[in-house]
Amino acid sequence: MSSIYGEALRVSIFGQSHSPAIGVTIDGLPAGFPVDMDALGAFLARRAPGRNAFSTPRKEADLPEFLGGLADGVTCGAPLTAIIRNTNTRSGDYDNLRDIPRPAHADYAAQVKFGGFQDTAGGGHFSARLTAPLCVAGGICLQILARQGIRVLAHIASVGEVEDRPFDPMRPALPETNPDFPVLDQDAGLAMQALIARCRSEEDSVGGTVECALTGVPAGLGDPIFDGMENRLARILFGIPAVKGLEFGSGFAGSRLRGSQNNDGFHMEGGQVRTLSNRHGGILGGITSGMPILLRVAFKPTPSIARPQRSVSLSAGQDAELRIRGRHDPCIVPRAVPCVEAAAAIALTDALLCSKKDTMFWEETL
Amino acid sequence: MSSIYGEALRVSIFGQSHSPAIGVTIDGLPAGFPVDMDALGAFLARRAPGRNAFSTPRKEADLPEFLGGLADGVTCGAPLTAIIRNTNTRSGDYDNLRDIPRPAHADYAAQVKFGGFQDTAGGGHFSARLTAPLCVAGGICLQILARQGIRVLAHIASVGEVEDRPFDPMRPALPETNPDFPVLDQDAGLAMQALIARCRSEEDSVGGTVECALTGVPAGLGDPIFDGMENRLARILFGIPAVKGLEFGSGFAGSRLRGSQNNDGFHMEGGQVRTLSNRHGGILGGITSGMPILLRVAFKPTPSIARPQRSVSLSAGQDAELRIRGRHDPCIVPRAVPCVEAAAAIALTDALLCSKKDTMFWEETL
Amino acid sequence: MSSIYGEALRVSIFGQSHSPAIGVTIDGLPAGFPVDMDALGAFLARRAPGRNAFSTPRKEADLPEFLGGLADGVTCGAPLTAIIRNTNTRSGDYDNLRDIPRPAHADYAAQVKFGGFQDTAGGGHFSARLTAPLCVAGGICLQILARQGIRVLAHIASVGEVEDRPFDPMRPALPETNPDFPVLDQDAGLAMQALIARCRSEEDSVGGTVECALTGVPAGLGDPIFDGMENRLARILFGIPAVKGLEFGSGFAGSRLRGSQNNDGFHMEGGQVRTLSNRHGGILGGITSGMPILLRVAFKPTPSIARPQRSVSLSAGQDAELRIRGRHDPCIVPRAVPCVEAAAAIALTDALLCSKKDTMFWEETL
Amino acid sequence: MSSIYGEALRVSIFGQSHSPAIGVTIDGLPAGFPVDMDALGAFLARRAPGRNAFSTPRKEADLPEFLGGLADGVTCGAPLTAIIRNTNTRSGDYDNLRDIPRPAHADYAAQVKFGGFQDTAGGGHFSARLTAPLCVAGGICLQILARQGIRVLAHIASVGEVEDRPFDPMRPALPETNPDFPVLDQDAGLAMQALIARCRSEEDSVGGTVECALTGVPAGLGDPIFDGMENRLARILFGIPAVKGLEFGSGFAGSRLRGSQNNDGFHMEGGQVRTLSNRHGGILGGITSGMPILLRVAFKPTPSIARPQRSVSLSAGQDAELRIRGRHDPCIVPRAVPCVEAAAAIALTDALLCSKKDTMFWEETL
Repeated sequence: MSSIYGEALRVSIFGQSHSPAIGVTIDGLPAGFPVDMDALGAFLARRAPGRNAFSTPRKEADLPEFLGGLADGVTCGAPLTAIIRNTNTRSGDYDNLRDIPRPAHADYAAQVKFGGFQDTAGGGHFSARLTAPLCVAGGICLQILARQGIRVLAHIASVGEVEDRPFDPMRPALPETNPDFPVLDQDAGLAMQALIARCRSEEDSVGGTVECALTGVPAGLGDPIFDGMENRLARILFGIPAVKGLEFGSGFAGSRLRGSQNNDGFHMEGGQVRTLSNRHGGILGGITSGMPILLRVAFKPTPSIARPQRSVSLSAGQDAELRIRGRHDPCIVPRAVPCVEAAAAIALTDALLCSKKDTMFWEETL
Repeated sequence: MSSIYGEALRVSIFGQSHSPAIGVTIDGLPAGFPVDMDALGAFLARRAPGRNAFSTPRKEADLPEFLGGLADGVTCGAPLTAIIRNTNTRSGDYDNLRDIPRPAHADYAAQVKFGGFQDTAGGGHFSARLTAPLCVAGGICLQILARQGIRVLAHIASVGEVEDRPFDPMRPALPETNPDFPVLDQDAGLAMQALIARCRSEEDSVGGTVECALTGVPAGLGDPIFDGMENRLARILFGIPAVKGLEFGSGFAGSRLRGSQNNDGFHMEGGQVRTLSNRHGGILGGITSGMPILLRVAFKPTPSIARPQRSVSLSAGQDAELRIRGRHDPCIVPRAVPCVEAAAAIALTDALLCSKKDTMFWEETL
Repeated sequence: MSSIYGEALRVSIFGQSHSPAIGVTIDGLPAGFPVDMDALGAFLARRAPGRNAFSTPRKEADLPEFLGGLADGVTCGAPLTAIIRNTNTRSGDYDNLRDIPRPAHADYAAQVKFGGFQDTAGGGHFSARLTAPLCVAGGICLQILARQGIRVLAHIASVGEVEDRPFDPMRPALPETNPDFPVLDQDAGLAMQALIARCRSEEDSVGGTVECALTGVPAGLGDPIFDGMENRLARILFGIPAVKGLEFGSGFAGSRLRGSQNNDGFHMEGGQVRTLSNRHGGILGGITSGMPILLRVAFKPTPSIARPQRSVSLSAGQDAELRIRGRHDPCIVPRAVPCVEAAAAIALTDALLCSKKDTMFWEETL
Repeated sequence: MSSIYGEALRVSIFGQSHSPAIGVTIDGLPAGFPVDMDALGAFLARRAPGRNAFSTPRKEADLPEFLGGLADGVTCGAPLTAIIRNTNTRSGDYDNLRDIPRPAHADYAAQVKFGGFQDTAGGGHFSARLTAPLCVAGGICLQILARQGIRVLAHIASVGEVEDRPFDPMRPALPETNPDFPVLDQDAGLAMQALIARCRSEEDSVGGTVECALTGVPAGLGDPIFDGMENRLARILFGIPAVKGLEFGSGFAGSRLRGSQNNDGFHMEGGQVRTLSNRHGGILGGITSGMPILLRVAFKPTPSIARPQRSVSLSAGQDAELRIRGRHDPCIVPRAVPCVEAAAAIALTDALLCSKKDTMFWEETL
C-alpha cells in the first residue's frame, strides 16, 4: 500500500507535482449520491494556490475532471475517478534539488528509498499539491456527511506563537469568517496575517496548528484497538504534508491533569445520554460517544525558504549551500484548513459505511 | 477490520479482559527467526500488573503459551499465535458497569455500538489488559529489530506536571535505570512517584507522557502519503488505551517556530549524509531519514477512580452516581512504556519487511 | 497476508498439524448473534477424522474451545477466537519427510519458501487438519446464513469416474442422506464407497468432485471486477487443500455451448424477476442474481499413498525412494464436503456484511 | 474493495464503458523499472477491438496516457496511473437495456445492487472494455517478469467443441503463430475460425477455453491457505468478464485419477529438484514448485447475441422480448488470450514482490 486509505471506501491518490496530472479514485462509494459540483468547486477553491497574499503565487484552476464513477452526475457504484491536469509547472526551478536535498523535505529520504529514480520535480509524489485530489475526495465526503447531519469545521488555531480562541468543546461553531483565513478571534487573525507577511519579507516561514470539530456525529462509529476513530483519523491526517502532531480532546494538556479533572461525567439531557464536558473529544475507547469530535493538528513551518541553507551535494559527496528558487507559501496553515476538513471527512465517511453492518443481528430484536 | 494491524505483518489481537484467554496472531513473519523466550519474558514482566506500588494489585503470571508458528523455537513461516490465560478475574467487580457507564471509559460508546451485547466484564475487549498480547508481538519484533541493529528506547517523559529530561535528539540513550520506572532524571522520577502515591491516596489518578526513540533505523523506510512512517506509528500507537496525543520530533512546539529555526540542515559525516539537528524526528515526507526516530505520546489520567462520579443508569434512563470498585493503576504511564516500545517495534518491523521489495529493480544497477 | 480471508469479516487460520493447537479468529463479526454450540458440534463432526471406513484412523475430539468473542454464548463484537488442541499426534511418522519430500504435497515447495525452517510434522501449516478451524468459522457462518433464509448444500458429485446425479439447478435439494457420505443417487454412493475401499486395499487413493449449492441468496451480493462473488468464492475454496479446479453454473461444459444455448432468459414469476434456467449458476457479472448459486470443486487424489514413490533426498542431493507411513484418507472428498460448505458460507457471509452499505443513499428514495 | 487487486502491488481499475475514460492505478511498483512503451503498445493491440473478422467492429486506438508514476519513462515509486479515453461510444445502442436486462449479462444483478443508479451504457463498469486497463497493468508486469526470466504464454485451447492441442506440461512453448489467434495446432485454429464465422452468420455466439503457462517461475512463490498461488490467480482471473471455470494442472481430469497416476514424483536433474511429470501444474500447497505453472480458464459464450431473447421489462414488471443492437464479438476467446496473460502476470508479479521478505532471516545463514 501507501497511497490508498480506507476500508469500506478506498481513497487512492496518484500523480506527481509535475506529471501530466494528479488525481484520486474512490472505490466503494455506494450508488445514488448526487455530487454537487458547485459546492465541490467552492470547497476546492479554498485550497487552491495563488488566491491571496498568504500563499504561493503558482496559479492553477484545479478543476477536477471526472473520468468515471458518475452517471448523470450521480454516483453509480463504480469507482469514482477525478483528475486535475498539471498545467503551470516550472520544473527548471527544481533542477538543482536532485543533487542538493532541501532540509526538512522528503528529497533525501526519497533518494534513498527510490534509489535516485524518484520524480524530483516539484517534490514529485511528496508535493503538497497532492492534497488537491485529497480535497476532491474529502469534498464529496463532506457532502455525504452533511446529508447525515454531520458538519466538519476547522479554523487556524495558531500561527507561530499567535493563538486563536479554541472551539467551545460542547458546542463548536464557526462564525461568519474569511473562508480563506478562518479564525474565531478576528484580532488574532490579523496578528497571524501580520506574522506571515513578516516571515515572507524575511525570506522565512512559520508553522501553526489547525483545530477541527465534527458535530452531529452519531455514537458508535469506529472499531476497537487498531481501527478506533482516533487511529483512523491519525492515519489519514498524517498523510497531509508537514503534519507532525495530533491530539484529541484535551490531548497533551489532559496528560497533565488528574482523573477527577479530566473525566467527563454523564447525564441525561432531553432523553439522551450526554457528557457534562468534552475533554474526551467525542471519542471513548476508539468509538464515537455522540459528542463533538475535537482534534488539533500541528504543522511544521514550510520547509522551503529562500534563505541559504546548509545541505550536501549527493553527487559530490560533500557539503553544499542550498538556495531554493520556486514559489512557496510562507505559511501552509491557511491552505491546510480545508485539507484537514477533507481528511477528517474521509475518515468519518469510511467509518460510517463500515458501521452499517454493526446492527445486523440486534436491530431486529429492538 | 479493527483488531488487525499491519501490511507485511498482520498482528491480530483477540480476547477480552475476563474471557478464557487473550492472545495474538502474527501472520507474515518470515521463517528462521529464533525467539528468545527469556528475553521475551523479561520484556513482558515490565508490563505485567501487580509488580510494584505504582500499579494495580491484580496479579497475573501473563506467560504466553505458543500455539503455532514455531518449530523448535524458531519461526517456521506459519502464523505465530500466543495466548495468555485469564485466571485472576473478579467479574463481580464490574456488575454495575453494564448499567452505569464509567466516565472516560468505552462503556457507553460500546453499549451503543454493540447494542448491549458487548462483554462488559473488566472492560471486555477495550481493557488495557489487551496490551499484553500487543507486547508479545512487540517483544518479538524488538528482537528482530535488535538483530538489524535497531534499538527502541522509551522513558516516562512526564507524570502530571512533573517532567523528565527529554532524549538527546541526536543521540538518544537510556541510562541504567529502574526498568519499571524508566526516567533520565532520577530526581524527576522520585517526584513522579510521589505524585502517583498522592493520587492513589486521594482516590484519584493522573496522566502523563512517554517519549520513545528508535536508533539505528536505516533511511528509506515508510511509504508515501497514507503509509508514511508517521501514519504507521500513529495507527498502532492510538491502539494503546488512553492515548490522546502523538507528536514526532519538534511536534507541537515546532509549529511555533520559523522555518529557519525548525529545518534541519544536512552535512556529510564519515561519508554519510546526516542532519545537523533532529527536529524532524527521523522522518521526512513519511520516510525515515536515517536519524533517530523521536516521538512523544500523551496518556490521559486513568479513567477509573474510586471517587464518586456523575453518570447515568442506562436502564432507568436517569442520572446516577457511580462508585467504581475493582483494582486500577493510579497512573497508567509506567506500565505504558513497554507498550509504546512494543507498538513502535511492530510498526517498524512491518515497514522494514515492506521495504524488502523496494530495491528490486535498481540494486542490480548499483 | 496469507492465512487471513475476507473484507468485512477477517477469518484468520493458525496452527500446524502437530503444534500445541490449531485455531481461528473471526474479526468483524457483528455483536448479538447466539452461536448454537450443539449445531456447530454436529457440523464439525462431519469433518472429523476417524469416524468411518472412508477416512484416516486418526481420532480427535476436535471440540473447539472459545477463548474470546462471546459473552454468554452470544457474539459480543470482539474478535471471536476458537482453538482445537492437537492431542493425538505421532510426529515420528513424519521424520523422514523433512529430507524426502512427498510427491504432490507441499513439502518441497515449503522447503524452498521457508529455507528449511518450516514445520514438517504432519504437513505443518499445510495439513488438511487446518480445515478444522475453517469449519468452526464456516459452521458459525452457516448459522448466520440460515437465519437469513440462506442454505448451503453440498454433495459428493464424483469419486474417480463414478458420478452422482447433479443438483437440479433451479431447485437444488439434498434428500435425507448419510451425512458422512452425502449423495443424491444412493447407488452411485455405494459404487463410490466400493471404489474407495478398493483404493485403500491397493495402497492407492482417488480424487473426486464436490457440488455445492446456495439457496435463498438475495440478488445484489458481490462487487465488481476483483471482488465478484465468483472471485470471493474462488479465493477461499482454493484454500482447501487438494482443490485444483472450480467452476460455476455450466462452467467448462458451458464453454462448449452457443450463446443461444447457454444464456438464461428472464421472466416474471410471482412478481419477481427470475431466470428461466440456471446455467449462470446464480452469479452474473460477479453479482448474485437471486437464483441458486451453483459451483463444483475438483479435488486431486490424496497425495499420501502407501506405495513406494520416486522422490529425492534433499540432504544427499540424489534420487531416493519414499515410503510414507502415517494415517491417510484414501479419498479426501467425503470429508471435504463440509469444508466446501464452510468456505462457501464464509464467503457469502462476508459479501452479505459488505453489502450492508450498498443501499445507504437510495433506500431512502424508495 | 471491489476493483482493487493485490497485496504488494495494488492494481485498481476504474471507469465505465462510456464514461470519459477508463484507467488503472498500480500502487506499490518499485522504482527503477523502464517501461518499454512499444512493447506495451504491441501487447495492448492484441486485445484491442476491431482488428479482424473475429471481433467487434468497434474501433479504438486504446493508447494509454500515463498521468503519473513515471519519471523519464522509468517507474519512480509513485503510483503509476494510465488512462484510455472512450471516444467511439454509441450509447444510444444501449437505451433499452436500462429497462430490459440482457440474459447472461450483469444488467439485472447491477440494477438490484445499485438501486437503478448504475451506469448502463455499454455495460458500464461491467463491460469487457475494462480489460484494457487490466492489460496495461498486465503488460507492464509481463515486462517485469521477462526481466526475471519468467515468460507467460497462452493459447486458445478450445472454441465450442473444437480443441487445440494442450501445452507440453513439462516444456510449454508457443510456436510462431498468429498473435491474434494463437493456437498450437493450425488446423484446429482454422476449424475454430470457421465455427466463429458460422456463429456470427447465425446471429449466435460461442464459448471456449484458454490455456496459460508460466515458465521460469522460481520455486517458493505464493503463501499458505488463502494466498496460495492458485488463490491469487483465481481471484484475478475471475475478474475477467465471462470466466466461469478455472483449473490448474490436471484439474478436473485429475479428480478422476488415482494417486498413483496423478502424483508427480521428484528426481534430481542437473543438480536441481524437478518433478518427473507436471500434473500439479507447478503449484503444490499453494506454493510454486519451480515447474511451469499451467492453468485453463473457461469462458462462456458472449452473452450479447442478435437473436431475440426472452427477458422482462423492469418498469412494466412483465415479460418482454429483447433484441440487442450494438457491436459484439461472436466469440470473446481470441481477445481474452492477452487478458489471461495480463491477469496471470499481475498475480505472479505481486507474489514475487511479496516473496522478497521471505528470506530475511535465513539467507544470511546460508
